[in-house]
Amino acid sequence: MMINIELEKAQQLIQERGSLAGIEKVSLVEAHERVLALNVYSPIDQPPFNRSPLDGYAVQARDTEGVDVDSPVSLEVIDTIYAGECLRKKVVSGSAVRLMTGSPIPEGADCVIRQEDTRAEAGRIKVLKRLCRWDNYCFKGEIFKKGDIVLCKDHLLKAAEIGVLAGLGITEITVYRRPTAAVISTGDELVEPGVDLAPAKIYNSNFYTIACRLKECGVNVVPTGILGDDKSLVQKTIMEIVNKVDFIITTGGVSVGEKDLMKEVMDNLGAEMIFWKVNIKPGSPALFSVLSGKPVISLSGNPLAASVSFDLLLYPFLTEITRNKSLELKNLQAVLQNDFNKKSPVRRALRGQLAQDENGNAVVKIIDLEQSPGNLKSALNSDCYIDVKKGCSGLKQGEMVRIII
Amino acid sequence: MMINIELEKAQQLIQERGSLAGIEKVSLVEAHERVLALNVYSPIDQPPFNRSPLDGYAVQARDTEGVDVDSPVSLEVIDTIYAGECLRKKVVSGSAVRLMTGSPIPEGADCVIRQEDTRAEAGRIKVLKRLCRWDNYCFKGEIFKKGDIVLCKDHLLKAAEIGVLAGLGITEITVYRRPTAAVISTGDELVEPGVDLAPAKIYNSNFYTIACRLKECGVNVVPTGILGDDKSLVQKTIMEIVNKVDFIITTGGVSVGEKDLMKEVMDNLGAEMIFWKVNIKPGSPALFSVLSGKPVISLSGNPLAASVSFDLLLYPFLTEITRNKSLELKNLQAVLQNDFNKKSPVRRALRGQLAQDENGNAVVKIIDLEQSPGNLKSALNSDCYIDVKKGCSGLKQGEMVRIII
Repeated sequence: MMINIELEKAQQLIQERGSLAGIEKVSLVEAHERVLALNVYSPIDQPPFNRSPLDGYAVQARDTEGVDVDSPVSLEVIDTIYAGECLRKKVVSGSAVRLMTGSPIPEGADCVIRQEDTRAEAGRIKVLKRLCRWDNYCFKGEIFKKGDIVLCKDHLLKAAEIGVLAGLGITEITVYRRPTAAVISTGDELVEPGVDLAPAKIYNSNFYTIACRLKECGVNVVPTGILGDDKSLVQKTIMEIVNKVDFIITTGGVSVGEKDLMKEVMDNLGAEMIFWKVNIKPGSPALFSVLSGKPVISLSGNPLAASVSFDLLLYPFLTEITRNKSLELKNLQAVLQNDFNKKSPVRRALRGQLAQDENGNAVVKIIDLEQSPGNLKSALNSDCYIDVKKGCSGLKQGEMVRIII
Repeated sequence: MMINIELEKAQQLIQERGSLAGIEKVSLVEAHERVLALNVYSPIDQPPFNRSPLDGYAVQARDTEGVDVDSPVSLEVIDTIYAGECLRKKVVSGSAVRLMTGSPIPEGADCVIRQEDTRAEAGRIKVLKRLCRWDNYCFKGEIFKKGDIVLCKDHLLKAAEIGVLAGLGITEITVYRRPTAAVISTGDELVEPGVDLAPAKIYNSNFYTIACRLKECGVNVVPTGILGDDKSLVQKTIMEIVNKVDFIITTGGVSVGEKDLMKEVMDNLGAEMIFWKVNIKPGSPALFSVLSGKPVISLSGNPLAASVSFDLLLYPFLTEITRNKSLELKNLQAVLQNDFNKKSPVRRALRGQLAQDENGNAVVKIIDLEQSPGNLKSALNSDCYIDVKKGCSGLKQGEMVRIII
């Protein structure tokens, strides 16, 4: 087992143990916010016919040569085609067919003149503007030809994608299954919200933070309740659940205290022990092991540490197992807006708040200058981490800093 | 009715007709991604007792005066308190109590020394470092005192918030009800995905795009199916549904074509007609009316136009009725990464893709230089709009442009 490893190494070790939860076919509506597991090819030409993009008249461009407001040309309106109606007549020189937005364009016409550029007369129109061939003419298949690739696998299906797929008549989509995780809370001090708090007890918050975070990432959560510091119960629970889930997250019992049982538990279960402790504050005492091929990520019981190490350690893994690229951690640079006077004997992840100044530059504010390990409040307003190098003696306002989102 | 109004005016007119859908009490887990309707005050002190943030020993700071690695002090370990265990003994000068992360700190102690800064001996420890009073000491109530405001109303409850509330023992939260919208598709050319496409017909995509977008915003959607261009059916459907929903979105029938029925329908129903047409492309032919106090937003039937005007017109309204500030449109500046040679006789919203360069500056790329009204594909990769002023003769790479997200 590796001990005291770098964050990037820890991310990579967890990520490479992630595997997809399989694929499934779901309805178009259920596919919303899921990730495509197969390429989607267009089953039709889109649009399915030559189509007018506006209300106007299908004409022949050559009939409008030399035409302007002062010397209009008069054309006979031989038909009107509403959107959804089939074509009847062909446009020949000297004639026009009235079209609505979305109407098919009749044969013979090679452009569509906007209604606003014509003047209607009894059975005829005056065209007031010169047109070129294919002006305002949407070609059959110009968005997608039948068989064209529409979306590649691993694409996250948001509203726009669902709309495009609906427009192609697609009703079923093959997406990745949502992974399932067990979230296990250890610690004799924990009680569930809703009961009275006995002395020395605290409410379990880690389960809720982590379960909600996983839900936001598209992971289903199996709760196991609070297991206290009962080694055999934790062991039994993990054994029972490991084959029902894709991975396990535990909180508590990973530090150096006497009851820090997770290392022993995972060792007893015969898990492959990968690493313990990451060189970053907060959240350093994380343990990573693999049991029956399933990753078991054991985080600190301290709510802030658990939350920070979830963010920093798990997103590359979550991206891997969901293929949802929007979960990728992003690194960028920003100008620091306040001083930070604490020394950093180990690398630090400071909670920050990212914004943009009036010139479009990224700026970041440290939320809690104390960065005390108990201050969960600071996590509420934070939307990024400032990555402070080991040995840093402090940061000054105006400095360019590295950000992790 | 106002005609051809500015985007900002249109946004404001819709927004000011938005009202909240009421409030409801939900469980902590259901409150995830909902918006707080009442301030939350802490029912307890958090932490509920003086608490050790690490594994170590509770001692008196004065016992460590002058202490370092070379001249340690030896203290008697009189007790061990695990997290969750009640206090027994008081710390007096010369004594120490072993604590775990999360253990209550005994009376008499005024700091906690890290286990790593001590050396254990039979029944005693050697302290290797000098401590100050209140070092590593988390005070009862230091995060929240009982009665402190924890979160203000209108706060969006993400994972971190749910965790903080759980940590306070809270199990029920008062949030705003999700608004409900009817989404009505008009147009004789539309058929539902899944059936064969007859000539001149297209699949209904607007319903899916808009319904999913609303879902992403926390709005429940009541589908009404495709109503074609049947004026009396559209009228009847709107009449029936208006009292069951908070607002209505329709697509199609808002342009200048003969079957553009929405203006007539809403007028027939006695709706208050607020505006028709917005000075921006695409999406200009939007109609806004109010029926029985319920906003009815009628968008273009063109999928791209519907999608763009949804984005530009509706988010201020959606922010208003959900109180979810993350839905607010954001304006910022970015450096353009490609040329745009088209003239803009009317104000234009170009689909763009926002990124950050290596110096932390926002940069934006125009997705589809043609910006053709049929190109729904461009909406797939776009994450912002570039706001191009009326009369603009083109944009150059390197120019600072205004962005709407």
